[in-house]
Amino acid sequence: MEVYVNFDLPPEAEAELRRHFSVVRGGDLSNVEAALVSRLTPDELRKMPRLRFIQAVTAGLDHLPWEHIPPHVAVAGNAGSNADAVAEFALALLLAPYKRIVQYSEKMRRGDYRRDVAIPLLAGRKAAVLGLGEIGTRVAKALAVLGAEVWGFSRAPREGPWRFTNSLEEALRGVSAAVCALPLTKHTKGLVRYEHLALMAQDAVFVNVGRAEVVDREGVLRILKERPSFIFASDVWWGRNDFDRDAEFFALPNVVATPWVAGGYGNEEVWRRMAMEAVKNLITWAMGGQPRNVARREDYIV
Amino acid sequence: MEVYVNFDLPPEAEAELRRHFSVVRGGDLSNVEAALVSRLTPDELRKMPRLRFIQAVTAGLDHLPWEHIPPHVAVAGNAGSNADAVAEFALALLLAPYKRIVQYSEKMRRGDYRRDVAIPLLAGRKAAVLGLGEIGTRVAKALAVLGAEVWGFSRAPREGPWRFTNSLEEALRGVSAAVCALPLTKHTKGLVRYEHLALMAQDAVFVNVGRAEVVDREGVLRILKERPSFIFASDVWWGRNDFDRDAEFFALPNVVATPWVAGGYGNEEVWRRMAMEAVKNLITWAMGGQPRNVARREDYIV
Repeated sequence: MEVYVNFDLPPEAEAELRRHFSVVRGGDLSNVEAALVSRLTPDELRKMPRLRFIQAVTAGLDHLPWEHIPPHVAVAGNAGSNADAVAEFALALLLAPYKRIVQYSEKMRRGDYRRDVAIPLLAGRKAAVLGLGEIGTRVAKALAVLGAEVWGFSRAPREGPWRFTNSLEEALRGVSAAVCALPLTKHTKGLVRYEHLALMAQDAVFVNVGRAEVVDREGVLRILKERPSFIFASDVWWGRNDFDRDAEFFALPNVVATPWVAGGYGNEEVWRRMAMEAVKNLITWAMGGQPRNVARREDYIV
Repeated sequence: MEVYVNFDLPPEAEAELRRHFSVVRGGDLSNVEAALVSRLTPDELRKMPRLRFIQAVTAGLDHLPWEHIPPHVAVAGNAGSNADAVAEFALALLLAPYKRIVQYSEKMRRGDYRRDVAIPLLAGRKAAVLGLGEIGTRVAKALAVLGAEVWGFSRAPREGPWRFTNSLEEALRGVSAAVCALPLTKHTKGLVRYEHLALMAQDAVFVNVGRAEVVDREGVLRILKERPSFIFASDVWWGRNDFDRDAEFFALPNVVATPWVAGGYGNEEVWRRMAMEAVKNLITWAMGGQPRNVARREDYIV
């Protein structure tokens, strides 16, 4: 079977792929039945009339040209392959500003030893986790171990050491900490708006490790300017890899920004694992098995 | 019953204490049977011939003048009263440098969006928690949720989501992350030395939220200078509140320093809770009950 690949795979994943498929990287794509991709253009799609399966190496599938993908083509994402790395990073993005590590560390370097910055407790406080996939679940469990009153928000109920709600208002009202690990779909685009952020505690920290577009850009900017005590800590930005587009955020004192490094971009080992998981899922499909993370087309087609 | 108090209590704790005892703050201490203290001097002790019980408001008891406390006087600490706050802080001190939050955040502010700092994984890596009291237990559970291979070190075996060892070498060999939450006793003083730190992974993070003296000062300084990739993140310092004595650490790039703020010093609410817990434990003792955290004298008398 011919498989189209449009990015550089780590050597182990490339070798594993070649053990099972004939790998095509360009030229005649007319016999391609499956594609292993990072991004995908309508042009590439048009060249693959026999395409039946698209395996993305990314966890999210929001960047695919859904309107151009025929309904009979199944699309699988790669959620879970980097969940451990992203969950750790999310907790770090939350705790570093929440426990005032950076502020005190900088003070100590300048010889200012005064204990004049209050450090909020997480234990006993309400915390919200938006999205209860593999990332959100790990974060929620860690917050529960630390004694926070965890609320879990997602479309479908999921059990764990949290109180479940499918109301964003209920999840965010009065919370001291929120971690967003929602996928970007037509249902979540622009979901978190100013009025939701305004429900949070005055000195709350909002963390985003999902996709920037789940949160309304202007709403975040407004609350950051209105409430100097509110902290926005995010690894994902609206300009995607064009970070300059969001530079006005990075200049604000109540923003902690990282350049989309929580998962595979920040760690070679995570990237290798993501690639291998994607290849394995593709093999499962080719062998007639049930691949993981098959997307619901209706979540993306507006 | 007369109780001697030598520090300012928060109002609720003071009121609760006065409901049960006659509070003495100076003058004639000859009828004092119990003392609620932060620190305590040999001079104060000499003035209380009828003293039978000392309740410390602090979790640690290492700072008491043990050689001057008669063997028939019971001494209780306040461990656990700030464990939630310290555990959160310990995890923040670990994750902030481990996941390179500060480095990337600073790069973003200067417009440097390059992803050129590798971010280590915690999942699948060996992590050690030294001291399995209420703080260590919480930290160990959180690390286990994040997928780390957790090793727990303490004098007596304790069960949990970790592999137990009473060998410091076994606990620290090859670990990527270590959190020290040991009390300072005659058994733990200077316990962690250069040769132990040298067993850790090249880019390991060592966190201390217990007492500085558990770790050998010169040993830490040596490894920090020999291994720029090794990170020491600590809330406690050998000079105690005289931070200037340890200023050479704060100047090192591979040190994250905070001024003893993990517990009651960093949070008014934690401090109020610590005071109330201490008062309640004192009441338990006075009513003939079994107070918590009664120290083993032999752990402190050299």
